[in-house]
Amino acid sequence: MTRIGIVGGTGYTGVELLRLLAVHNNCRVDCITSRTEVGNPVATVFPWLSSYSNLRFEEPSVERLADCDLVFYATPNKTAMHEASFLLDRGTRVIDLAADFRFSDLAIWEGIYNGPHGSPELVSEAVYGLPEKNRCAIKNARLVGNPGCYPTATLLGLLPLVELNVIDDCSIIVDGKSGASGAGREMRSDLMIAETADNFRAYAGSGHRHGPEMQHQLSNFGSDAVVTFVPHMVPMIRGIEVTIYVPTDLSVEEARSLYQQRYDADPMITVISSDEIHPETRWVRGSNRCVIGIYQQRSGQLIISSVIDNLVKGAAGQAIQNMNLMLRFDETESLVMDSVSP
Amino acid sequence: MTRIGIVGGTGYTGVELLRLLAVHNNCRVDCITSRTEVGNPVATVFPWLSSYSNLRFEEPSVERLADCDLVFYATPNKTAMHEASFLLDRGTRVIDLAADFRFSDLAIWEGIYNGPHGSPELVSEAVYGLPEKNRCAIKNARLVGNPGCYPTATLLGLLPLVELNVIDDCSIIVDGKSGASGAGREMRSDLMIAETADNFRAYAGSGHRHGPEMQHQLSNFGSDAVVTFVPHMVPMIRGIEVTIYVPTDLSVEEARSLYQQRYDADPMITVISSDEIHPETRWVRGSNRCVIGIYQQRSGQLIISSVIDNLVKGAAGQAIQNMNLMLRFDETESLVMDSVSP
Amino acid sequence: MTRIGIVGGTGYTGVELLRLLAVHNNCRVDCITSRTEVGNPVATVFPWLSSYSNLRFEEPSVERLADCDLVFYATPNKTAMHEASFLLDRGTRVIDLAADFRFSDLAIWEGIYNGPHGSPELVSEAVYGLPEKNRCAIKNARLVGNPGCYPTATLLGLLPLVELNVIDDCSIIVDGKSGASGAGREMRSDLMIAETADNFRAYAGSGHRHGPEMQHQLSNFGSDAVVTFVPHMVPMIRGIEVTIYVPTDLSVEEARSLYQQRYDADPMITVISSDEIHPETRWVRGSNRCVIGIYQQRSGQLIISSVIDNLVKGAAGQAIQNMNLMLRFDETESLVMDSVSP
Amino acid sequence: MTRIGIVGGTGYTGVELLRLLAVHNNCRVDCITSRTEVGNPVATVFPWLSSYSNLRFEEPSVERLADCDLVFYATPNKTAMHEASFLLDRGTRVIDLAADFRFSDLAIWEGIYNGPHGSPELVSEAVYGLPEKNRCAIKNARLVGNPGCYPTATLLGLLPLVELNVIDDCSIIVDGKSGASGAGREMRSDLMIAETADNFRAYAGSGHRHGPEMQHQLSNFGSDAVVTFVPHMVPMIRGIEVTIYVPTDLSVEEARSLYQQRYDADPMITVISSDEIHPETRWVRGSNRCVIGIYQQRSGQLIISSVIDNLVKGAAGQAIQNMNLMLRFDETESLVMDSVSP
Repeated sequence: MTRIGIVGGTGYTGVELLRLLAVHNNCRVDCITSRTEVGNPVATVFPWLSSYSNLRFEEPSVERLADCDLVFYATPNKTAMHEASFLLDRGTRVIDLAADFRFSDLAIWEGIYNGPHGSPELVSEAVYGLPEKNRCAIKNARLVGNPGCYPTATLLGLLPLVELNVIDDCSIIVDGKSGASGAGREMRSDLMIAETADNFRAYAGSGHRHGPEMQHQLSNFGSDAVVTFVPHMVPMIRGIEVTIYVPTDLSVEEARSLYQQRYDADPMITVISSDEIHPETRWVRGSNRCVIGIYQQRSGQLIISSVIDNLVKGAAGQAIQNMNLMLRFDETESLVMDSVSP
Repeated sequence: MTRIGIVGGTGYTGVELLRLLAVHNNCRVDCITSRTEVGNPVATVFPWLSSYSNLRFEEPSVERLADCDLVFYATPNKTAMHEASFLLDRGTRVIDLAADFRFSDLAIWEGIYNGPHGSPELVSEAVYGLPEKNRCAIKNARLVGNPGCYPTATLLGLLPLVELNVIDDCSIIVDGKSGASGAGREMRSDLMIAETADNFRAYAGSGHRHGPEMQHQLSNFGSDAVVTFVPHMVPMIRGIEVTIYVPTDLSVEEARSLYQQRYDADPMITVISSDEIHPETRWVRGSNRCVIGIYQQRSGQLIISSVIDNLVKGAAGQAIQNMNLMLRFDETESLVMDSVSP
Repeated sequence: MTRIGIVGGTGYTGVELLRLLAVHNNCRVDCITSRTEVGNPVATVFPWLSSYSNLRFEEPSVERLADCDLVFYATPNKTAMHEASFLLDRGTRVIDLAADFRFSDLAIWEGIYNGPHGSPELVSEAVYGLPEKNRCAIKNARLVGNPGCYPTATLLGLLPLVELNVIDDCSIIVDGKSGASGAGREMRSDLMIAETADNFRAYAGSGHRHGPEMQHQLSNFGSDAVVTFVPHMVPMIRGIEVTIYVPTDLSVEEARSLYQQRYDADPMITVISSDEIHPETRWVRGSNRCVIGIYQQRSGQLIISSVIDNLVKGAAGQAIQNMNLMLRFDETESLVMDSVSP
Repeated sequence: MTRIGIVGGTGYTGVELLRLLAVHNNCRVDCITSRTEVGNPVATVFPWLSSYSNLRFEEPSVERLADCDLVFYATPNKTAMHEASFLLDRGTRVIDLAADFRFSDLAIWEGIYNGPHGSPELVSEAVYGLPEKNRCAIKNARLVGNPGCYPTATLLGLLPLVELNVIDDCSIIVDGKSGASGAGREMRSDLMIAETADNFRAYAGSGHRHGPEMQHQLSNFGSDAVVTFVPHMVPMIRGIEVTIYVPTDLSVEEARSLYQQRYDADPMITVISSDEIHPETRWVRGSNRCVIGIYQQRSGQLIISSVIDNLVKGAAGQAIQNMNLMLRFDETESLVMDSVSP
């Protein structure tokens, strides 16, 4: 069995890696680290992870992690960038679920994330882990920057139009909505149930870091579209929906046909071809799927609704999909479970 | 005490009229109708409306309603249009909470709502009941068409820009989100808690009736902007948020100052002047307030977030605000309650 | 206008006092304290409390509070006990919403709350603020200990049986359920929406402080019943329901009749007389009402379901009801609002 | 591959059977019936069941079902009893998820479910499908009555005490709480999100059919305890918690030790041994696990909290566990997935 390491195993993305890897046939979690839970069994800290009866949290140690074949960083930003080089030198592959390796242009990263990068020499080597775009590069990568949750839903919603170069104009509106788990496990008063339930609001109206990530990757994909992105907080646990307003002369029928063809070989993408049916986040709850619908109210504009589970296709699931590609496993291994609904 | 009639008292807007009118100092509910609950006490059907210990549901009867000074139609579309004329002839004022009298142009209404209008001669007389725009006309109106919930939040979010004529371009994006009570009390499988909770989705991506209502009223207000409107279903009970993307050369500071001045004398509007604070639907839960925030990510575009309670400022509360104007009561009578939060 | 002080105005019960007092016709909030928000306007900290445009948070000062006619302590336990004596000496009445003055027996209090009481001489003077039991004593009280939320729902559900002395046996089971606002505004990971929504659990199975409070007051009311109490966390914002299993030979018809008579003159209590209808917490959302239903599955046992809003009848509303009695206002002043439902 | 039939595939338990069987290594769904969806692909009706790209709903036909090796009835009560005999005669095993075969005593069943049974001769042959009690009998059964959701959680919470015969007294209180999916997919106004969210209530206070089911099975297990059972509706999608109050002289330490030993070989049961930790329904969301905690407030009484997912261990998962036993597959096949949390 291939040996896997997880750094930062007590956050939501770490827990989700554990849930998904529990049924992976080709690898097992060999080392999981957490500063706060050193020595404690995983199954005690997270009683629902009953599969992990023998795994315990360890003190973070890059030497220990180098025993693994691949290490996931389910950590805050600016963690993986200090350790990736050490691991890569020892032949351990690295997937960072934070933002350290999502930008191929160092200056852009430094502008958004304030300050010098811990391993600037790796920035251009790292592959942006969106399998539907970069499958070949991911297969050959030592280091993958796993995409942000909002960018994943948005880029998958735009990819066929970008590749066909049919976005007429430079301005795209991305109106994003996310469940509360997207904010992570950090305690914040605005995420307490009494403040968040039965409530809805925009946030970061003046700009959110995922906007430039979308912009940068669209540019890498060959588009010069300018993105306006406003995220919103939904009183639910999991799920992201983005509604994208795109200026294009494509008709809705042409677009649906284009998307069906473009994603035909992609096992994780479902395209809806109906005016009446709209993607629902519950359809992807707990699953690595992305469901996309396309609508039109007037010529010259398309409306795209794209949904994912922010913790799966938006984080841990996509990371495992990338791992499967890097380690030449079946791309969908451990990721075929249907959604839990209702 | 002025005598009030309510037609359709068992829907959510009817119940909300009852809740708000219970503390009104100038009027009392004299007659409430419901086909399904004839003879039953209001306080039995809705045990939480303990104020109404003596009121019973009656068989709908336009003669009986003509005893009232003012009648609210909290009914489906195409109900009030058949009875308004009879009541107006007897001196009873009418406020329709449905869409029968929201369009001053008969042809547009017929296009959207399929078919002939029951009282075409009243369409041009009816006043669109948005007090912040039409306060004088409402004061003198016999017949008011109470605005839709999404149009209320949207038009209040756009009014200052429209009046100043600073929207550069013809395309406005309105991304709307609503709690489930906006769909009314009709049973639908997609509104069952097991299907709607922990779920988010767009609906009516190809067009929703509230889009043309916004469009029509913006045109009445002097704007030729074209509106794209996509609504979404939020897993909460009450509340609407719309995020509006407007092409304009106004800076965010200019816009905030403009909105503050424009709404200075409007008792129900609060404007936020901060990049960090965004309107939350819980701030208006149970209240008749509209809270508006303005943001900017690049020059040439403003982002406006506007929240209301769909059942209050988006329906029953605004209807009472209109009644207060029509009957020359204090505009805020029975509407000053602070929101219930948490 | 009578002048009111609120100590600890930023917790949920403080905010609820503000909401309810905003429409009180006989008094106004003159002083509100908060260590963390000194100098900030109430309407900035809580944007939905638009009524309080001129009130600012002040540094806690017992001298300043002595200017008020009555002071509410919406503070943690062991705060009011250090200041009550000073205020009472200056003629300022005091209502403590925490547990300092809920026990007439000092030793019991010290056993539960660990340690010496700050003003033992006041413990026996303080009146337990359950108006339905202690109305006369409250009217003449200088110092009131406002009941806990679970004890309020439970004691109101048992009072008629206790007074009639028809509880056969010494063991009563109280199975309680509360919305998350009952835990207060303190940040706790188990109250984050991603951990609490779509989740249900018991807590304090081995004993909760509200158990001895129920026990002590039942004893004061003349019962020697022994209470087993297990609380549970419901994924909702507001509301408490307790299901009480009582050994008694009373039939359900006798009990319903007894409760109707006992509470006939109590403006805040509603008794349901039907096998088919059960009290719902939404019926009391935002209201000071308690709704009680009585059921039976076999002779020798009654089942009582009692619901309140934990922040209103379970805290701030009951405190104002007590204030109304102490200051000889109408008992229901500012408390007649119907529930917000849906 | 073993061929499986599902009758009533559009209800929540049918959908859950599909989700779980999708990853079963020894069998596949060969036939699924639904009167309302005949001819439609499963993956169209339930877009999140992407595994079922080739399966279509069929007209119910008992001849067609007889082609299968085992048929699940995920139907309303009184459906399976008319068809089981036909199928058993042709060698097809049957598991009924409704109540037709949960009672070994015909008279009791007829008393609760009003009226004559469709196949009285099978009532005594049918095995009550609680593997933790009846594993051997299930292995040899042709016909299994799958337990109700509340009885599953309750009986698993009581089994060790019943078997040791240490329940002192005849009266057990079972206070049950369930998410809304327990009510099935039928449309009911009290299950609409606007009526159920942020709400809590008891129901069936005068008696619920699951009470006699518990009583009957406890009697079959050798106990003469009398059960009082009151269920409650929790504003969540999935999950059941029951709090059981048991008169017994066992200490909490003895009880925890007893439960640990009793369930040591049962792969689906977890026993918690801590005063501080209580089972949470999210720990079993989507999983076939039952988690049990034991608490004590005074001698002579134990408090047991037991949680399951009502659609998995309370319905479809337990049915598959029974199938695995009947067909001699690994008991946990397709049931090892960890819970989805958060």
